[in-house]
Amino acid sequence: MDIEQLATNLRNFEGVTRKKPIADIVNMFDEVRSEYGETIVDFGDDAAVLDTGGDEVILFAADAIWGRIALESPWWTGYTSVVVNVNDISAMGGRPVAMVNVMSSCDTEACKEMMRGIKDGVKKFGVPMVGGHVHPDTPYNSLGVAIIGVAKKDCIVRSDMARPGDAIIAAYDMDGRVGKNSPYSWDTTSFKDNQTVRDRFLVMQTLAEKKLLTAGKDISNPGTVGTLGMLCETSKVGASVDVTKIPMPEGLELEQWLKIYPATGYILTAKPENCDECIRIFEDVGITAAVIGEINDSKEIDIYSDGQKAVVFDLNTDTITGIDMETEDI
Amino acid sequence: MDIEQLATNLRNFEGVTRKKPIADIVNMFDEVRSEYGETIVDFGDDAAVLDTGGDEVILFAADAIWGRIALESPWWTGYTSVVVNVNDISAMGGRPVAMVNVMSSCDTEACKEMMRGIKDGVKKFGVPMVGGHVHPDTPYNSLGVAIIGVAKKDCIVRSDMARPGDAIIAAYDMDGRVGKNSPYSWDTTSFKDNQTVRDRFLVMQTLAEKKLLTAGKDISNPGTVGTLGMLCETSKVGASVDVTKIPMPEGLELEQWLKIYPATGYILTAKPENCDECIRIFEDVGITAAVIGEINDSKEIDIYSDGQKAVVFDLNTDTITGIDMETEDI
Repeated sequence: MDIEQLATNLRNFEGVTRKKPIADIVNMFDEVRSEYGETIVDFGDDAAVLDTGGDEVILFAADAIWGRIALESPWWTGYTSVVVNVNDISAMGGRPVAMVNVMSSCDTEACKEMMRGIKDGVKKFGVPMVGGHVHPDTPYNSLGVAIIGVAKKDCIVRSDMARPGDAIIAAYDMDGRVGKNSPYSWDTTSFKDNQTVRDRFLVMQTLAEKKLLTAGKDISNPGTVGTLGMLCETSKVGASVDVTKIPMPEGLELEQWLKIYPATGYILTAKPENCDECIRIFEDVGITAAVIGEINDSKEIDIYSDGQKAVVFDLNTDTITGIDMETEDI
Repeated sequence: MDIEQLATNLRNFEGVTRKKPIADIVNMFDEVRSEYGETIVDFGDDAAVLDTGGDEVILFAADAIWGRIALESPWWTGYTSVVVNVNDISAMGGRPVAMVNVMSSCDTEACKEMMRGIKDGVKKFGVPMVGGHVHPDTPYNSLGVAIIGVAKKDCIVRSDMARPGDAIIAAYDMDGRVGKNSPYSWDTTSFKDNQTVRDRFLVMQTLAEKKLLTAGKDISNPGTVGTLGMLCETSKVGASVDVTKIPMPEGLELEQWLKIYPATGYILTAKPENCDECIRIFEDVGITAAVIGEINDSKEIDIYSDGQKAVVFDLNTDTITGIDMETEDI
């Protein structure tokens, strides 16, 4: 394995580099910070966290699907919009409550196919679509979905709380298939029964309520190492990963697997003494988890294998999203 | 005044007819109703209402801005996306808590202009933008925003609760300007100080908490009579409106005014004995309100003036959105 080449390829992966324009935009809001009274976490995590005074906090996130995939596969666009949004809430240890959507489509058929995909997602995950806005006559297909969830106030899994000495756990549903629309998508839900899917995506709630994790993040477009990089960036820490420890499905190359958006996949950090229990809880619902490395204070994310080591991200000099989370501890 | 002609023009107004494709789509979700456990109100009202078990319910809505206006006026697109979303929550008697957005834009400049518009909206209304998803390289500009709010469980102003015998109140901020992007937009906020704007959009909360209203709806693209039609459709009632009673700004023709999206404007219903107090509460914050007609059981929405009368919508035979709200009473 050429670990230097792998590090370079992961650093330059489009799933990672596309995150760069975010900071410029997010940092524009610094000026109006005085209006953020009830906001505990905003940009920079899977979901924003709002404390409106009750026992539970509200989680709030949005994701969108555009471009070639939306034109070619409207059903998948609708279905996967539910998957990614539900994961934004479950990754924080929350319970998804409802979604709304904003849809535009080229024609009635594409519009209905997207809606069929959403409906199948609603059925699979048990999270209702309660409102929306449709433009049935645009020159493109696109679908934005926002989701709300709730979580107990002191049981949220944030991405900015990893600390040096924490172990890094990668957890995946290995029973999946590379999606037909991209070599970097991994479908773990569409072919499974509802109960299995719900058990797997709700397990993060159990881990959150048992307070077994220090931080965590849904593995999304930047892939496993890119997502770890984002978690380290918001936590202001570094990480060292033994790539030979990363659980992998049979028949896939390591580089492809590390770039995949695994649908049900998380990067988590925990105190070393809690890792065995975390892994057991994942295994009980059919998710494979393993300790793959350690958080340190270097602000570098490196990968190693068989005595070779290479730096993927050096956050001392570079940024991934560049978002500086200035949020309250709770 | 040719009242027949006016009725025809209001019925065929694009702001109204564009609502028709909604029903087909919404009714697809009937099949997955069993997943809607915490949902009190969904499609068909300004915002969905979710009861997650606390003292307050969560309000959740989405709106989007596309097309020519988004290409030509990215700042206004950003700003107005805040206005329309904040109104969705305030029209229900709720307090807006936070927004998320999904943005796509042709170029960095348009993207930044939209964000500047959003930022100015955040500053004006005091509602934070806490997350989002940006596609900075699409062949079009579009902006979808979702908003959450909270309201006391028994103090929500819904659109499906108008009953025969209720008076109809129209309320508008008359201190506005026809927007430069459309003869049917009415800007009441961009040139006013923050406190005046906040007082005016939060007054619905006072009316809701005093339980002075039976139903209500934010006047949006379908205009005053179109919005009343939608309220009657979800409430399964009819209405009769004396157009000479409708408050109007100087210098505008009635037909244009009735098609305008008045930014801060509501169609409300109330028991006749509560109307004076409603109007006084509006006037205290600078909003003009008047009783303009009465709800009846005809399922027709008619307008009259000087002894002439004409039917705008006959809901016995026609639909506006066609959404059949099957939601719980609370």
